[in-house]
Amino acid sequence: MTSSAERLWQRLGSIAYGADYNPEQWPRERWDTDIRLMRQAGVNLVSVNIFGWASIQLAPDEWDFGWLDDILGRLAAADVGACLGTGTASPPPWFSRRHPETLPMTADGIRLSPGGRQHYCPSSPVYRSAAAEVARRTAERYAGHPALAAWHVNNEYGGHVPQCFCDTSAADFRRWLHQRYADLDTLNDAWSTTFWSQRYTDWEEVLPPRLAPTFANPSQQLDFARFSSDALIACYRAEAEVLRRITPEVPLTTNNYTKWTLDSFAWGPELDIVAFDSYTDPRSPRTTMEAAIAFDIQRCARNGEPWLLLEQAPSAVNWRDVNLPKSPGRYELGSMQAVAHGANGAMSFQFRQSAGGAEKFHSAFVPHAGADTRQFRDVTRLGRALSRLGSGVLATRHTAEVALCFTWPSWWALELPARPSSLVRARTELARWYEPFWYSAVPVDVIPPARDLSRYKLIVVPSTYLLSEAESAALCDYATGGGVLLVAFFSGIVDAHDRVPQGPYPASFTDLTGVRTEEFCPLAEGTTAQVHFSDGVTVTATLWSEFTSAEPDVQILARFADGSTDGRPAVTRREVGRGQAWYVATALDEAGTAMIARQARDAAGVLPLVREQTRGIEAARRHSGDHDLLFLLNHAAAPGHATLPRPGRDLLTGRRVSGRTPLEPYSALVIDLEHHQPE
Amino acid sequence: MTSSAERLWQRLGSIAYGADYNPEQWPRERWDTDIRLMRQAGVNLVSVNIFGWASIQLAPDEWDFGWLDDILGRLAAADVGACLGTGTASPPPWFSRRHPETLPMTADGIRLSPGGRQHYCPSSPVYRSAAAEVARRTAERYAGHPALAAWHVNNEYGGHVPQCFCDTSAADFRRWLHQRYADLDTLNDAWSTTFWSQRYTDWEEVLPPRLAPTFANPSQQLDFARFSSDALIACYRAEAEVLRRITPEVPLTTNNYTKWTLDSFAWGPELDIVAFDSYTDPRSPRTTMEAAIAFDIQRCARNGEPWLLLEQAPSAVNWRDVNLPKSPGRYELGSMQAVAHGANGAMSFQFRQSAGGAEKFHSAFVPHAGADTRQFRDVTRLGRALSRLGSGVLATRHTAEVALCFTWPSWWALELPARPSSLVRARTELARWYEPFWYSAVPVDVIPPARDLSRYKLIVVPSTYLLSEAESAALCDYATGGGVLLVAFFSGIVDAHDRVPQGPYPASFTDLTGVRTEEFCPLAEGTTAQVHFSDGVTVTATLWSEFTSAEPDVQILARFADGSTDGRPAVTRREVGRGQAWYVATALDEAGTAMIARQARDAAGVLPLVREQTRGIEAARRHSGDHDLLFLLNHAAAPGHATLPRPGRDLLTGRRVSGRTPLEPYSALVIDLEHHQPE
Amino acid sequence: MTSSAERLWQRLGSIAYGADYNPEQWPRERWDTDIRLMRQAGVNLVSVNIFGWASIQLAPDEWDFGWLDDILGRLAAADVGACLGTGTASPPPWFSRRHPETLPMTADGIRLSPGGRQHYCPSSPVYRSAAAEVARRTAERYAGHPALAAWHVNNEYGGHVPQCFCDTSAADFRRWLHQRYADLDTLNDAWSTTFWSQRYTDWEEVLPPRLAPTFANPSQQLDFARFSSDALIACYRAEAEVLRRITPEVPLTTNNYTKWTLDSFAWGPELDIVAFDSYTDPRSPRTTMEAAIAFDIQRCARNGEPWLLLEQAPSAVNWRDVNLPKSPGRYELGSMQAVAHGANGAMSFQFRQSAGGAEKFHSAFVPHAGADTRQFRDVTRLGRALSRLGSGVLATRHTAEVALCFTWPSWWALELPARPSSLVRARTELARWYEPFWYSAVPVDVIPPARDLSRYKLIVVPSTYLLSEAESAALCDYATGGGVLLVAFFSGIVDAHDRVPQGPYPASFTDLTGVRTEEFCPLAEGTTAQVHFSDGVTVTATLWSEFTSAEPDVQILARFADGSTDGRPAVTRREVGRGQAWYVATALDEAGTAMIARQARDAAGVLPLVREQTRGIEAARRHSGDHDLLFLLNHAAAPGHATLPRPGRDLLTGRRVSGRTPLEPYSALVIDLEHHQPE
Repeated sequence: MTSSAERLWQRLGSIAYGADYNPEQWPRERWDTDIRLMRQAGVNLVSVNIFGWASIQLAPDEWDFGWLDDILGRLAAADVGACLGTGTASPPPWFSRRHPETLPMTADGIRLSPGGRQHYCPSSPVYRSAAAEVARRTAERYAGHPALAAWHVNNEYGGHVPQCFCDTSAADFRRWLHQRYADLDTLNDAWSTTFWSQRYTDWEEVLPPRLAPTFANPSQQLDFARFSSDALIACYRAEAEVLRRITPEVPLTTNNYTKWTLDSFAWGPELDIVAFDSYTDPRSPRTTMEAAIAFDIQRCARNGEPWLLLEQAPSAVNWRDVNLPKSPGRYELGSMQAVAHGANGAMSFQFRQSAGGAEKFHSAFVPHAGADTRQFRDVTRLGRALSRLGSGVLATRHTAEVALCFTWPSWWALELPARPSSLVRARTELARWYEPFWYSAVPVDVIPPARDLSRYKLIVVPSTYLLSEAESAALCDYATGGGVLLVAFFSGIVDAHDRVPQGPYPASFTDLTGVRTEEFCPLAEGTTAQVHFSDGVTVTATLWSEFTSAEPDVQILARFADGSTDGRPAVTRREVGRGQAWYVATALDEAGTAMIARQARDAAGVLPLVREQTRGIEAARRHSGDHDLLFLLNHAAAPGHATLPRPGRDLLTGRRVSGRTPLEPYSALVIDLEHHQPE
Repeated sequence: MTSSAERLWQRLGSIAYGADYNPEQWPRERWDTDIRLMRQAGVNLVSVNIFGWASIQLAPDEWDFGWLDDILGRLAAADVGACLGTGTASPPPWFSRRHPETLPMTADGIRLSPGGRQHYCPSSPVYRSAAAEVARRTAERYAGHPALAAWHVNNEYGGHVPQCFCDTSAADFRRWLHQRYADLDTLNDAWSTTFWSQRYTDWEEVLPPRLAPTFANPSQQLDFARFSSDALIACYRAEAEVLRRITPEVPLTTNNYTKWTLDSFAWGPELDIVAFDSYTDPRSPRTTMEAAIAFDIQRCARNGEPWLLLEQAPSAVNWRDVNLPKSPGRYELGSMQAVAHGANGAMSFQFRQSAGGAEKFHSAFVPHAGADTRQFRDVTRLGRALSRLGSGVLATRHTAEVALCFTWPSWWALELPARPSSLVRARTELARWYEPFWYSAVPVDVIPPARDLSRYKLIVVPSTYLLSEAESAALCDYATGGGVLLVAFFSGIVDAHDRVPQGPYPASFTDLTGVRTEEFCPLAEGTTAQVHFSDGVTVTATLWSEFTSAEPDVQILARFADGSTDGRPAVTRREVGRGQAWYVATALDEAGTAMIARQARDAAGVLPLVREQTRGIEAARRHSGDHDLLFLLNHAAAPGHATLPRPGRDLLTGRRVSGRTPLEPYSALVIDLEHHQPE
Repeated sequence: MTSSAERLWQRLGSIAYGADYNPEQWPRERWDTDIRLMRQAGVNLVSVNIFGWASIQLAPDEWDFGWLDDILGRLAAADVGACLGTGTASPPPWFSRRHPETLPMTADGIRLSPGGRQHYCPSSPVYRSAAAEVARRTAERYAGHPALAAWHVNNEYGGHVPQCFCDTSAADFRRWLHQRYADLDTLNDAWSTTFWSQRYTDWEEVLPPRLAPTFANPSQQLDFARFSSDALIACYRAEAEVLRRITPEVPLTTNNYTKWTLDSFAWGPELDIVAFDSYTDPRSPRTTMEAAIAFDIQRCARNGEPWLLLEQAPSAVNWRDVNLPKSPGRYELGSMQAVAHGANGAMSFQFRQSAGGAEKFHSAFVPHAGADTRQFRDVTRLGRALSRLGSGVLATRHTAEVALCFTWPSWWALELPARPSSLVRARTELARWYEPFWYSAVPVDVIPPARDLSRYKLIVVPSTYLLSEAESAALCDYATGGGVLLVAFFSGIVDAHDRVPQGPYPASFTDLTGVRTEEFCPLAEGTTAQVHFSDGVTVTATLWSEFTSAEPDVQILARFADGSTDGRPAVTRREVGRGQAWYVATALDEAGTAMIARQARDAAGVLPLVREQTRGIEAARRHSGDHDLLFLLNHAAAPGHATLPRPGRDLLTGRRVSGRTPLEPYSALVIDLEHHQPE
């Protein structure tokens, strides 16, 4: 059976290209102009009705779909698909006035006001049913409409209000807890409520972690993070159920972030197509790699299925302190980067720059200055480039032999207060271990341990503080079953409820790695530790050290060389079963991390996609039965090159390429490799 | 007919000199001592009853004017005028307890508490009528009293509570909006409410911009800023109407700041005399120039009429983190600076330093240590100096041939969130263009465009982001009519509702200047751009650059020399009609700005007041039919000099001066120039 | 009569050693293991039931003491004393739900939530009586129990909620004020309410200093600080009265901080034994001296009686941003430092590291990794060392000839807003003058002036801004009576109500010192002043200078050498009566302060405890009729030495020592000196 997602790809015939389009902001006489410009730019999909609620439901019982009928008709006539919003992300003023209890509340009890967007409590049954009703009306009206290509449900769930602390949310939290724990004894045990006299005797006593005199119970905070992410999913489901019932053949998506508050891995199964908003910061030199990480997370949210880059800025955004435009070429390169990482679409916010409102200085396909601009010419050029990739690319899949372990519960737990060091951040440690692979042309997946691990040759666990018993066991089994497992410091410290098992750290891995830690010795900001490798190399570490000891059969690759951990093992390797278990007890600098990553990769037999490349060139691979596509992206401001594993044809230019292949600054090649066996 | 203000000047006979005096803080036995010291210091005017409410209205129906009768009688006997406060700036505890709904509310819903001062909602009808009643009682009692020289209405309106977000304010905001927009469609259009589903269907839905999940609607914020400034004026009017009815011959004033929240240009017409509180910071090297700018704004608030410096600190204030005293001479020089900029008074807060309360460490004419102090001797010396200026100075007016454009609506709109760069600040850009004139002895006015522009030879528009159609047209007409108009970057970008017209930036000026901007390229903190002038000079710019292009008849004076704007016009000039239009697309450093200002000044035929002068010497001119006064102020810590345009007599010393004239550090000359024609 | 405290010392027979133990967090099968480990470590006292409320009172009428019976029985059997908590510091969830009005409120009106600890309003009668009832039940049950060694009432009063602004607190504040002032006129006068129209006409108008538009009345803030400290004492009394009635023979204590909010000197008389929580920061180089200061304050809170170090961390804490472990030796040295400063106990938090909750990463005697660890071996070694001090040490008292003046009302008043400089901080100035004595082996007391001053040879008054008339008089009498009094800048400026008397500064001391200050000239951050001594030495000062003048009989030791105070006296000395009065008008650097301190010490005839010592060696003396103990502590990371005044025997090793005596890094000697007369 063809899935709804596959139907979308078939309909589009090439990489989805387009932007949000908000016709309600413009007089109708401009609509035809805009649709003409869409066609000129190669647009095949636009997001419409994202904030349509107030324009559609004028009052509780007054509906006006006329303008939406009109624009959808024109889009269909122009063969531009609509990623049709349910329009529910910003309740109209009349709704908030009529239902003030739907307004969200902060942890210190401030009821947020309408006037921006997303001013709703995700747990509000009143909001949920009103949103579902808007979705129902819209779906019933446009079921079967030729423009309807996909549903864009709501918008950026939790972007501004990821957690609500109102009484409605409190009641919903209790319901969620009741379902999770069944009885209060279990909850008391899971939350360690003997501490600080917090034992509950009645469900009604349980509250969200509102502002308290000091640290709220960390297990309560952790469960509230879980609940809040789930509450947004439940909010989505209220609309999704309606849409699936009325238009089962149309794929559902919504645009996610990769944020602390929303578990992307939990969202994946809920959607037909994962969609992602990527707002890189032109001021940050790391923004390109950070985008790659987020792309990999989103792709892995549905096990590698094609996903959509649903929003990015063609140039500047409006919400940073200083909003720099993207320098020439970077918009196109960034779009191609998403495709390299498995996206079947490269969409932007938005088509025509708004005249008013909070986002009027956000860049667009058609800027204030009009279509006779550098911006629109760039947009048009990218449209042509994407169409050159043809339909074949849509069926290819990104593949990787290396996985980095990452979970939201661990991220949540790690970044709660009262940890050994607040400087240890989950995303930073993920990036620390992503970086050596990124710079050496080795693609990776980023996954939770509850996946099929057997497909990977090497798995890295970067400071994954919280691991459930099942997760620990899966990782240990992976190693003893023949895999190479590299565990970095502060991984597997607590169970699913943020409780530390008795015994040396890290409880999840001491038996496997043979390394036992008595005490954490975090390093203050601005201080470092020296790590001596047995081959004489010394590397600088930051953030962390540990008072460790090792079993006799552990190979000690490096030791701490100063402070109270002087002489203690810092990097180790141990043969375990048919595989290996590595342990890294500190945060090595880039060179040190790269050295260890390279050794572990060699041990695992993982080869890079190209034979060598200049720094700043990123490589990715998408392949199918028919195609083996090598993406090469030069993110450097200088010309670079890469040496191909075998010859092929660049789809963007049609040229045959082989061997040492040059790349202009901020440029990409998409090489359909010839069908040899990889060396 | 003699205006009430003129009557005051006639009564005083020389520059108003004095301070706030709070007799209610002292035992009566000290009053005569204090009045004796006033006479010793040359005081002719004191502000009394500024915070008298609780001492006058002891309960809703209990009044006690005895103490005020007493002190006013003594002042009259000593021939010291009273700038009589209505005393309404701090409601008594019994009032706040009885009317808790009059307490103001923050944007996040916190009801502010009494215990400080200004704890009232400016829109509260209960507060307004109570204040008017206090004013009525006071005016009826002292109408015709010989001490009554002027009314000081309330005090520092909006200094602490410029905006209130309570329900009373919300209702008042709606009334204000209804008056402005008449119908909701007009408001929806002005506020661009199609954006983010914000369309209003009932006036009751409209709220102040309270804390929302994200950016509130910017047009709503802008109108709330307008409303809040107007609400304070309405608050003033409630008292002013009573006073004007009872004592029409007594001039009304109140002390304003030059702050973001209060539109000084809107206040001007409401007052009989503009009054200003100037609190320079001895730690800031720019404080003297900033004071000059504020003085010019306040003077222009009533078209150049004499104004009052109503408060300044004789030495240290109490409310900064570290409160440095003024070094010797700077209090006197700062007072004379106000007179140079058109003030007919140089008053201070306060006469005798308080023993208790929040301001007890604020300096005073008579400090804690008593009258046998350096401080009181300085005060007395200044009193003598001011009296030497005689009555002639009172009728002179400050004049300028150059104007800098400035409006509050533009300031409000520019500094709302979600702009291209939050680093661009209205006051900083005003100061950037004020500085070259200040250092070159060229006086300026600071005005909104809705003034008679024809009297100026040169008008500079420094990043005036918002211009109404009428404002833009007036400026363009000024140029084509023969003026020299210099427009700096990010001016005329939006209309009166913060909406960007379609087309290249800046919509207001592209036709006039012939320069069209496609994209803003703000510069991040710490980064710069190079600007090459056609004569080979290179200048450094910060904050901003633009992707510009110019019409063929535009003379390109300088181009950007790096980054994505490389080669694009940065500074241009164009002949337009009988005048010129200059455009500066970036924020030049001091040298670059001075160079452009000098060229524009030369093009406009504007001459400085002196032939040459050392750095740090400020020059200003006040003249009347009888007198042509040249003020020279040496703000430098080193001796300086200036070369006079023609000889004259220094009113402070009586000495004749001519040619190259020396000035001691922190000293002033007030030269009555001989009656030649200016060269 | 033997006091309850002395009974405790007799019972223990040696320095109290142990930790908090929370059996409710552990299965009973672990309890015997833990008690065995206690004995192994030399533990003779543990704090139990600190957070037991929710485990004891399961519902309003449901009590369960079984678990506490059990553990107390086991402790008694093992001869480990219990410092038995009343367990009332964290109300159970059922209590907060049933009595939401007991939850505390912030100054901006936010009601704090349960979920952490200490979520109660200290003024709540409902909370107080509930806590007293828990205390009553516990006391009645365990009166006469062999394990019951002392009562630990509540826990860390005011640690998180030092001030509550709710209506209950407001009413209690009014009651407190009524008691203090009797009538409103007196309050209006004390609070200077003529300022800013704040005059009260009804007690009900008086409120806590909740968030106001600007500075709240400083006298109101000062009294609210006094009240809030007293409210916590009243809270303590509610429990203490019950305990004293039921178990009069058992000493009462509670663990205090040395914080701005709690007046340790007011707490002293309330307690039978002063107890203190000391959390040094391994990252701060000053943490050791800061601990010494706090120890001295706590000891002086009960006039030098033995006190208890009730909590410290064996290694890392959990609540700083980065929690470094203590490096080897520092836990033991820090414990010995407390004993040196007069403590008869060196307890820690906690015995076994928690598995869950907010403090699970706080170190413990038995860490997560178990007892076979460096940590537990250190703990055991310290236990042995303390026991070697024997019972003789318990009866000795710390003695000092120098006192530093310090009071909470002055600290409160000094650090309110709107002072000449917010950079002047009471604790910093105390430390500035503590430092020279600490580094030169001269022990000091830290006392309020309302003590017997005659026992001291030298008293330093470091920026004691507020002094009541009685306090000023006592200090002046001390000097004229023969003492050496050194007054540092900004001392004695205001009276007990934060009012400045008329006349030169500082009102309390101008007559005594003969130095009169006209104006404060604080120095901004990053700026300095030069101070020239008459012997040619120049010293750098920060923070402060003054425009001073001196009477003819004042000896001017140093003058300011720049700025507006150039040439004015900076350091002076004057013979007064039979003593001397010194004045220091600025904040000298370490060298300058040490020089003055040395001169004043010489003038007073104060000798150090050792003849010379390396930097970082701290010396203290405890003595009794039988023993003269010299404590030497080497806080440096390098070996050091000290030269003894006479020979003795080191109690820790039993070795005889004399003359130049070496000390290892981070090591201590406790020398029982031979009975010569001191030289």
